[in-house]
Amino acid sequence: MTNKSFENAKEQSKLLANDLINNPKKYRVLTGDRPTGNLHLGHYFGSIINRIKLQNAGIETYVLIADYQVLTDRSVFAEISKFTYELTLDYLACGLDPENYKTYIFPHSHIPELNQLTIPFLTLVSSSELNKNPTVKEEITASSMNSINAGMYTYPVHQAADILFCKSNIVPVGKDQLPHIELTRKIAKRFNTKFNKNVFPEPVAFFTSTPNILGLDGTQKMSKSRNNSILIKSTSDETVKLIKSAKTDSNRYVTYDPENRPEVSNLLMLASLCSDKNPTDIANEIGDQGSGKLKQVTAEAINTYFEPIRKKRKELEQNKDFVKDALLKGISKARETAIETLSEVTEAMNMKIQ
Amino acid sequence: MTNKSFENAKEQSKLLANDLINNPKKYRVLTGDRPTGNLHLGHYFGSIINRIKLQNAGIETYVLIADYQVLTDRSVFAEISKFTYELTLDYLACGLDPENYKTYIFPHSHIPELNQLTIPFLTLVSSSELNKNPTVKEEITASSMNSINAGMYTYPVHQAADILFCKSNIVPVGKDQLPHIELTRKIAKRFNTKFNKNVFPEPVAFFTSTPNILGLDGTQKMSKSRNNSILIKSTSDETVKLIKSAKTDSNRYVTYDPENRPEVSNLLMLASLCSDKNPTDIANEIGDQGSGKLKQVTAEAINTYFEPIRKKRKELEQNKDFVKDALLKGISKARETAIETLSEVTEAMNMKIQ
Repeated sequence: MTNKSFENAKEQSKLLANDLINNPKKYRVLTGDRPTGNLHLGHYFGSIINRIKLQNAGIETYVLIADYQVLTDRSVFAEISKFTYELTLDYLACGLDPENYKTYIFPHSHIPELNQLTIPFLTLVSSSELNKNPTVKEEITASSMNSINAGMYTYPVHQAADILFCKSNIVPVGKDQLPHIELTRKIAKRFNTKFNKNVFPEPVAFFTSTPNILGLDGTQKMSKSRNNSILIKSTSDETVKLIKSAKTDSNRYVTYDPENRPEVSNLLMLASLCSDKNPTDIANEIGDQGSGKLKQVTAEAINTYFEPIRKKRKELEQNKDFVKDALLKGISKARETAIETLSEVTEAMNMKIQ
Repeated sequence: MTNKSFENAKEQSKLLANDLINNPKKYRVLTGDRPTGNLHLGHYFGSIINRIKLQNAGIETYVLIADYQVLTDRSVFAEISKFTYELTLDYLACGLDPENYKTYIFPHSHIPELNQLTIPFLTLVSSSELNKNPTVKEEITASSMNSINAGMYTYPVHQAADILFCKSNIVPVGKDQLPHIELTRKIAKRFNTKFNKNVFPEPVAFFTSTPNILGLDGTQKMSKSRNNSILIKSTSDETVKLIKSAKTDSNRYVTYDPENRPEVSNLLMLASLCSDKNPTDIANEIGDQGSGKLKQVTAEAINTYFEPIRKKRKELEQNKDFVKDALLKGISKARETAIETLSEVTEAMNMKIQ
């Protein structure tokens, strides 16, 4: 993953952004998350909000919950189904809408024909390609596991199956996912060439200009594992308390200066995202009222913005069957799609029973 | 794979042999082949005949055609479905009998729930375990491929899915397959321990005392790729011609002496296997009549033995629907079994939608 290919991908994404909105029928999006916790504001402004934009533009959207992938670098599994449910609640509350749009939410463990694609795909990549994957290498370094399991090295191939089973051609991603998209493109191309049939599109990574949301420590990315996050589902009171605990600095005069004052600027950015005001304007309004006022303004902005989402989430919590039905519908559609794709794959590979 | 564990496995198989016949309901056999060619006499006396014994003893037998596995070390794929059909013809002609026994013949590419098991299983083995597999290492050395694909390193995990999807507890194998059975046992054990539920049995390798059938060159194992084999489906005339081309030695007096006269002894062994006479007795009957007579006796014994099998094969060739139905029935049963097993797996892994 060179910086050059990252810059190219960003450039391409800018051009793409307009076409996505103008020609929604040309595209199918694959996106998703691992079910390891609830979504926080970093997820929301980093990806959920963009998924909803794409959905609302009329683009078919497959939202995959990567439950099997949890096993690649974690030894715990007790809460996987709980977090599959919690993630779905977060999605639905935020506006992903399987009722009114072509949005399908499903855990990949429930789509056998998707998982099966991993087997032939493994024969299309070399071992050394997998061992050299920079994102996997970083994750291995970050992982606390004693021994690295083979699922860790091969999950990018499984992820290619996640992306290609529904022939998605657009994958909204962060920079760390770019090596996986490149591998997916290679697998699609090699499959089509080797088996002499144009089964798979070569999907394109889609970057959006997303803010870099830091955690309450003001230094690191917001992340559940760093214990520095505000959840979408947090209550107003919890939000106020969390924001009060946020790190700021000793300068009473509030200014938006991300480079020199990251903690203060991060709160301003959150207030801005939740109010559609410019962060510098918010800073000017606060002036010398200090970080107490900044925190009050930020917490209020967050609580106002997320009030309807949290209200909807509360309602959905009372309606477990609705959430379950959304998942079952998503599974049903994803399976239908996977069965079709696998059938084409089997035909191309000359393995049909005749 | 140490010699000691091989000796242990052989010892265990001897004890097992009686119990298999006496308690057939306790066992489920998984066996199979790659669809890369027709079966020859080495296959027949090395494994097919034992499969039929197990089947006829009333043991449920899953006969898996490993079509995906062909892709791990070959670049050609055009003939996979043809050889799936040809293998099935060979099986049925030899007496594997889905009509009258619990014998299920199916290509694994048609069982998505089996293939899916590979994904969680990959997280139960370490990369170094896969890289150290001695059989895979040998196959890589023997392979003519420029670059080794990831399917080659991971196929033993896929094979564990082949074995465990039907909870087979007996796998008839040759020595080279023993490392794969050991890995399968580890995966079964690790799964049951990690997910705290006794889903999988730890299958046992089953060796039978099979003759070492050499090819017509008299030096190497009979093998299609060495062009030294007599096929089960060969005609009588072809068999006579092939046996005539077999290498012998210049000593006119025929004796059974595998160590010093491997070529002559191999023909005597074939004649013996096809006639139920002792190879030494056959040698004595031929005496000084030379290799011409030996070849005549051998070809006749083979042709007599295989006459009903070849006749049945010819009939089945005319009845393509019967063969196809056998496969479709096998697929249907294997899938039913795989769906059940996967459901238990999903439950144990806490991934059920509730």
